[in-house]
Amino acid sequence: MSFAASVLTLYPEMFPGALGLSLAGRALEAGTWSLEAIQIRDFAADRHRTVDDTPAGGGAGMVMRADVLAKAIDHASPPGDKRPRLLMSPRGKPLTQARVRELAAGSGAVILCGRFEGVDQRVIEARGLEEVSIGDFILSGGEPAALVLLDAVVRLLPGVMGNAVSGEEESFENGLLEHPHYTRPQEFEGRPIPEVLISGNHKKIAEWRHAEAEKLTRERRPDLLGGTPQPLVK
Amino acid sequence: MSFAASVLTLYPEMFPGALGLSLAGRALEAGTWSLEAIQIRDFAADRHRTVDDTPAGGGAGMVMRADVLAKAIDHASPPGDKRPRLLMSPRGKPLTQARVRELAAGSGAVILCGRFEGVDQRVIEARGLEEVSIGDFILSGGEPAALVLLDAVVRLLPGVMGNAVSGEEESFENGLLEHPHYTRPQEFEGRPIPEVLISGNHKKIAEWRHAEAEKLTRERRPDLLGGTPQPLVK
Repeated sequence: MSFAASVLTLYPEMFPGALGLSLAGRALEAGTWSLEAIQIRDFAADRHRTVDDTPAGGGAGMVMRADVLAKAIDHASPPGDKRPRLLMSPRGKPLTQARVRELAAGSGAVILCGRFEGVDQRVIEARGLEEVSIGDFILSGGEPAALVLLDAVVRLLPGVMGNAVSGEEESFENGLLEHPHYTRPQEFEGRPIPEVLISGNHKKIAEWRHAEAEKLTRERRPDLLGGTPQPLVK
Repeated sequence: MSFAASVLTLYPEMFPGALGLSLAGRALEAGTWSLEAIQIRDFAADRHRTVDDTPAGGGAGMVMRADVLAKAIDHASPPGDKRPRLLMSPRGKPLTQARVRELAAGSGAVILCGRFEGVDQRVIEARGLEEVSIGDFILSGGEPAALVLLDAVVRLLPGVMGNAVSGEEESFENGLLEHPHYTRPQEFEGRPIPEVLISGNHKKIAEWRHAEAEKLTRERRPDLLGGTPQPLVK
C-alpha cells in the first residue's frame, strides 16, 4: 500500500514542486506515494472565496476561518481515515527524525498549510490537528515546511533509497551529528585526507569516526548529549 | 540594493519552485531579491560530469568532491563577494529567527545544497562554509532546506510583507510561541470565541494573550523558557 499525502493549501501549484524531481519524484511516478494538493478556497461559502477574517480581539494580520478549514479537512479526510492530520505551524512540536520514521511507517498524512497570522484555534481542537514545527523561524506559510516534511518521509519509504544502509548511519539516527566525510582527490589545495581513513584498518576508522562525531556534537549540539541547550532565541 | 541569492545544486530546476509564487514570487518579480540556481555538474572535470566519489575509509553512499565544489563556489562567489556562504546540512547550527533576520539585513547568500552522504570536509574548511541545519531530520538533499531558508529571509526584506507589525508579534520574535487565534464565526460547532476577546477591553486582551502564549510555551517548548529541553532524539 502506498503512502497517501493530502495537502490543504491556498497554493496547490506549489506541489509537487521539488518533490516532483529526484528521489521523491521518481517514487511519485512509481506509485510508492501519492500527492493530492487541495485548494482550501474551494470550500469557502461566498463568491469571493474568502478563507480568512480579522482576529477576534484585534491585532495585525488575518486568521484562517474554522468553518472553511473544517469543510476542507472533512473532504480530504472523511470519517474512518486513519491518517494523522498535521498542521504545519511554528507553534508546533519540533519535527524529529523519530517522528518522520513513524509517519513513514503509516498510511499517509493530511497536511494543512497555515497562512496569514494563523488558524482559528477551534478547528485545531475540533479536528484534532497535530501542530508540527520544522524549526524556530517564521515562514510565509506552511507550504515550504510541508515540502520538507514530505521529503524527509518519502525517502524512508520502502524502495526509495538505493542503499538502505545509508539511512541508518546518518545524523540523528544514532543520536550524534555525522562525522566528517572525505573522498578523492587524495590532496585538495594542500589538504590531505586524514591518514587513518586510508590506513585500511577498519576498527581504527570506526573509532576515529565515532570520536569525530562525538566531538562535533559536543561543540555544536550539546543538547543532543543531554547538556545545556543552545539558546534558540537571542 | 536587492538581496542576491546564489544556490549551488544538482537540481537547479527545483528553483524558484514555491519561491516563485505568493509573497516571495511577487518580490522576485519586483526585483526585491534575485535568485540564481547554479548546476554543480557544470564544474566537473570529466565528460561524465562526475561530482561525487566513494568515501575515504569505506562506508555507504557517496561524497561530493572538494575540487568540483570549490570551482562552483569560486564561480558563484568570487573574491570580494561579502555574502555568507552557507551549506545546508543536518550537522549544522540550527537556524533561528535571529539568524534569519541577520541574513535578511545583508546583501544576499551563497547556498550550497548537499546531496548523497555529504560534502568533503576540506571544501567546508577551505571555503569557510557555514553549516546551517533547519532541524533534526534528514532530507534527500539540501534543496528543500534552501527553499525554507530563503522563504524565511525573503519575507523580512523591506516591502515584502504588507503589514510590518505582523512580523513583530509572531512566534519567536518575543521568545514565546504565539497565542491562539480566533475569528468569525462567533460560534463554530458549539465552540464560542473566548469571551475576553470580544470584551473590547484591550488591556485584558493583551494580558490573556500573553498568559496563553506563556502556557503554550511551557507545555510544548520549556526549552524556550530556559527549562529542560524536550529530547530531540528518542
